[in-house]
Amino acid sequence: MSGLGELRRGGVIGILGGGQLGRMLAVEAASLGYHCHIYDPDPLAPAKQVTPAFTTAAYDDAGALDAFAAAVDVVTYEFENIPLATVRHLAARVPVHPGETALAVAQDRLTEKDFVNRVGGETTPYHTVDSVEDGQVAGAKLGFPFVLKTRRMGYDGKGQAMIQSADAVADAVAQLGGTDLIAEGFVNFARELSIILARGADGAVTAYPLVENRHTNHILDVTIAPADVSDAMAEAARDVATALVTTLDYVGVLAVELFEVDGSLLVNEIAPRVHNSGHWTMDACALGQFAAHIRAVAGLPLPAVGVHSRAVMKNLLGDEITNCADLMAEPGLCFHDYGKAEARPGRKMGHVTRLYPL
Amino acid sequence: MSGLGELRRGGVIGILGGGQLGRMLAVEAASLGYHCHIYDPDPLAPAKQVTPAFTTAAYDDAGALDAFAAAVDVVTYEFENIPLATVRHLAARVPVHPGETALAVAQDRLTEKDFVNRVGGETTPYHTVDSVEDGQVAGAKLGFPFVLKTRRMGYDGKGQAMIQSADAVADAVAQLGGTDLIAEGFVNFARELSIILARGADGAVTAYPLVENRHTNHILDVTIAPADVSDAMAEAARDVATALVTTLDYVGVLAVELFEVDGSLLVNEIAPRVHNSGHWTMDACALGQFAAHIRAVAGLPLPAVGVHSRAVMKNLLGDEITNCADLMAEPGLCFHDYGKAEARPGRKMGHVTRLYPL
Repeated sequence: MSGLGELRRGGVIGILGGGQLGRMLAVEAASLGYHCHIYDPDPLAPAKQVTPAFTTAAYDDAGALDAFAAAVDVVTYEFENIPLATVRHLAARVPVHPGETALAVAQDRLTEKDFVNRVGGETTPYHTVDSVEDGQVAGAKLGFPFVLKTRRMGYDGKGQAMIQSADAVADAVAQLGGTDLIAEGFVNFARELSIILARGADGAVTAYPLVENRHTNHILDVTIAPADVSDAMAEAARDVATALVTTLDYVGVLAVELFEVDGSLLVNEIAPRVHNSGHWTMDACALGQFAAHIRAVAGLPLPAVGVHSRAVMKNLLGDEITNCADLMAEPGLCFHDYGKAEARPGRKMGHVTRLYPL
Repeated sequence: MSGLGELRRGGVIGILGGGQLGRMLAVEAASLGYHCHIYDPDPLAPAKQVTPAFTTAAYDDAGALDAFAAAVDVVTYEFENIPLATVRHLAARVPVHPGETALAVAQDRLTEKDFVNRVGGETTPYHTVDSVEDGQVAGAKLGFPFVLKTRRMGYDGKGQAMIQSADAVADAVAQLGGTDLIAEGFVNFARELSIILARGADGAVTAYPLVENRHTNHILDVTIAPADVSDAMAEAARDVATALVTTLDYVGVLAVELFEVDGSLLVNEIAPRVHNSGHWTMDACALGQFAAHIRAVAGLPLPAVGVHSRAVMKNLLGDEITNCADLMAEPGLCFHDYGKAEARPGRKMGHVTRLYPL
């Protein structure tokens, strides 16, 4: 496949990461006539249940990566913490979408915030922290409380601490590793929102409506789609997200997490992948986010997504996946189990989507 | 699994037949937290692309059937022409849904018509034909033209002939095998309709709306959902279909094909399986036919199906699957490619569903 051509029917899409996102991507790839090959170090990765073709190997196993590259026509990934070296190794052999730049930007909170500001998006004020002294400067600049985070690899509230006063800086910096940190001004946001869009190899962009996300214990609990916002705010979100994917020359689905603060939007994070806050799209749109991502990666057209219903998506964590007799009996509910064997507390095991007339 | 209990998460559903129906069943089984094992003699059966577990063996391979039975918790099938002996062999080892009676009824047009009439459904008049003499009696009884069919194994217009006059009887009887035939009165129907419903192990029934089907060259071309019919006709269809599944003590999805003649309904055929005329449900209902069938087979509840959109489903035959640039670019269209390598003329390669507000 060239960067511009269409992947032929029967072509093979390689997916790095075999969690629930890789699994739902694989299913939609099949529905578009493609084969999938899942690459994941975990032999029990749930995406390996929905395809006969998978590799169980470490992300730095050059031999396994070479064999994977030889077996597929194009590569994508389900999460942004894939080592950059892995993607580089593969990209020398086979097209990888989204590209390395997007991944590099999204892997580092500092680079990410710099980039968002460069394309005209707003973020909370921030300060780079590589020492206790930097932490104290951040406190003086941002005020207390502020949030101290690792620049890399944090998710679902892991790798971060709320700093209430100057006294707490030294311990927090040490605890988070001492260096490669970022201090972010604390925002008392009214709501957390997100927008998901897909950009094709030809530059065409298709966007889903802005949605509202409610978290519990730093983990997404519920997504309400569409969010109850003004047209102006919906448009502002679409504009900043479009600027991001256009500047990155991005191919695939990208999610932008936003904070609503005093009626305007701050970009909190970007995710170069399909996103939990877009799971509602597979049941409430003709073209869901998983199909849209596969279309983009395969060079197929990206028409308007065709929202046919309002939706509320709720994650099922831990043993909520087994204690779900009421949900199973509820009319109008779409049920999605990710097939994970072990229902650890807090683990995303599945989700349900309730549909309502537009 | 007992006949009444729920199949546990992670349980294995065995599916006889790995065509597009088995494939879409497997995907929905995964979404309900189950593993699938596909059994099909064809190594390229498309359902084998969406699960790591499959058997390639003949339907009369006792050793392969035993190993299959040992590997699964419950068995279902995607088409009614599975040999009855295969189902009996398996049913002695593991639960099989729908059961043997439904399969036996559906495999034989004569038994089927007798059964429909027994539960109060109407059919076209018919006559059993095991000789040329029987054929002549049929002509005298039903008038000309009438339709002569094999009692078993016919589909998509294969295994049947229209008999215009007494002169044509002998040749047609010979050509169709001389025996085990059925003569059916020719009906000048206004429309072909069908209704799909699912019945659980607990006897609960959930039904989809009556739909209209348009055929080209004896192959389903388009399904319009719901059909534009009176409430009374919709209710009559639901009543006869409910009587059929109740009398059969049926577990799973069943499709009933109907002819509309002079404002009333004749049952043409029953299919003890998910059905092409129900493909629209996966995109226009919260609970599609594939998920409903898996729920029934697994002993899960069957709530109301939650129709959220009107729909028009169109089959893609032969090279329509590759000449589909316009379809791919059309907003609001759900695209389904069955992953079949060889696009033979007339072969069902995929379908698209267009959604419209209710």
